[in-house]
Amino acid sequence: MKAIVFDVFGTIVDWRSSLIHQFNELEKELGLELPCEALTDQWRQLYAPSMDRVRQGELPWTVLDDLHRESLVKLLNQHGIALDEATIDRINLFWHRLTPWPDVQRGLQRLKEQYIIATLTNGNISLMVDVARYAELPWDMVFSAELFQHYKPDPEVYLGACHLLRLPPEEVMLCAAHNSDLRAARALGMKTAFIPRRTEYGLQQRNDLEAEEAWDVVAEDLVALSEQGASHPGHMSRAKCV
Amino acid sequence: MKAIVFDVFGTIVDWRSSLIHQFNELEKELGLELPCEALTDQWRQLYAPSMDRVRQGELPWTVLDDLHRESLVKLLNQHGIALDEATIDRINLFWHRLTPWPDVQRGLQRLKEQYIIATLTNGNISLMVDVARYAELPWDMVFSAELFQHYKPDPEVYLGACHLLRLPPEEVMLCAAHNSDLRAARALGMKTAFIPRRTEYGLQQRNDLEAEEAWDVVAEDLVALSEQGASHPGHMSRAKCV
Repeated sequence: MKAIVFDVFGTIVDWRSSLIHQFNELEKELGLELPCEALTDQWRQLYAPSMDRVRQGELPWTVLDDLHRESLVKLLNQHGIALDEATIDRINLFWHRLTPWPDVQRGLQRLKEQYIIATLTNGNISLMVDVARYAELPWDMVFSAELFQHYKPDPEVYLGACHLLRLPPEEVMLCAAHNSDLRAARALGMKTAFIPRRTEYGLQQRNDLEAEEAWDVVAEDLVALSEQGASHPGHMSRAKCV
Repeated sequence: MKAIVFDVFGTIVDWRSSLIHQFNELEKELGLELPCEALTDQWRQLYAPSMDRVRQGELPWTVLDDLHRESLVKLLNQHGIALDEATIDRINLFWHRLTPWPDVQRGLQRLKEQYIIATLTNGNISLMVDVARYAELPWDMVFSAELFQHYKPDPEVYLGACHLLRLPPEEVMLCAAHNSDLRAARALGMKTAFIPRRTEYGLQQRNDLEAEEAWDVVAEDLVALSEQGASHPGHMSRAKCV
């Protein structure tokens, strides 16, 4: 194992709290009332369908920033919220300022001592560069769907990153809080590490509370992964998977 | 100006001293006599012609690691030096362990406070990731010719990086120790910063000792660039260019 690539939205950053917080701030600043939680959750619900439109050829390749904006406009219309273009642009950039989970910076620093660490994300490069700068994430490389013009879980994204690292898939581990992402990586021969983010979707979250398969590593967070998991792939999975 | 992209070989790292040093170490370890300086200089002389073979379609897209290896084999044959494949592979990886010039780490850290900082290099991604880890370079992003399947000075590399940053060329500055690289960037509308590396090719260096055009910034090194240059593009050029 030479490199660990990380899902970002949910696994590395708490996008939901970050977006709600920024909507709250905007509400105060503009003297508006906004349904901040609903806007955040509904915006994220439009994420997978918007990428599916690209995946199915309904849209040509479109970066996530632009998919986000299209979804946002649709959502604001549904809620009857009228905002000027500059404010819509500004809200779209909420995705560029996301707070990491508390274990992330320490965990990544430690993992970086032993492994190449990189993103493997559907976010576009400029979005990810902004997030990394805002959240002080010490990536060795930013791999994005944008580089391969395919969205996860298309195989091109996972294999594209391995190819650029000049490593066979079995020497690259995907770390993610989402079982489906890990399934796609494992099917291609990559190593897998699950860390739960049980409040990614708020307190009512029902999915991805636990590992659903015997992933190579299951750890509580990135610090735990750095302490025990990644150095002994396979070690924790049987003990912890459901 | 939002981002600065950097040439790496020569501008950021002292590849020549690093290679000579590694050849010297290998010589001792293997109990061989090697023409360390000649091998280093001749290997680098094969760099531009090897990329030209790709640029002219004589070779399909080939990453720098593979061009380096082909040149190395040719060179060893010319010198009548017989080495096994594993040793040749090991020598090829000398390019992954390059020492930065003394101002680089401090200069990049300071520039990163104000600008997105990234590579813009003909080195492939895995080579650049290794160099960044070895030399502790705090890049926000690693842009490589490999992402665009074109070598500098082809415009695709410069414009490709601007496109991924979602910035117009005039908001991106190329910093390089080579006037020709800056000429290519300026022709596409990018900002330009020259820093001299007068011993990149050793004490006999004749080229790129000074700025040959009125670049937007000319600074002695990256620390000087961070102090005065980049924040006032245009400020130093007329005073210092030849």
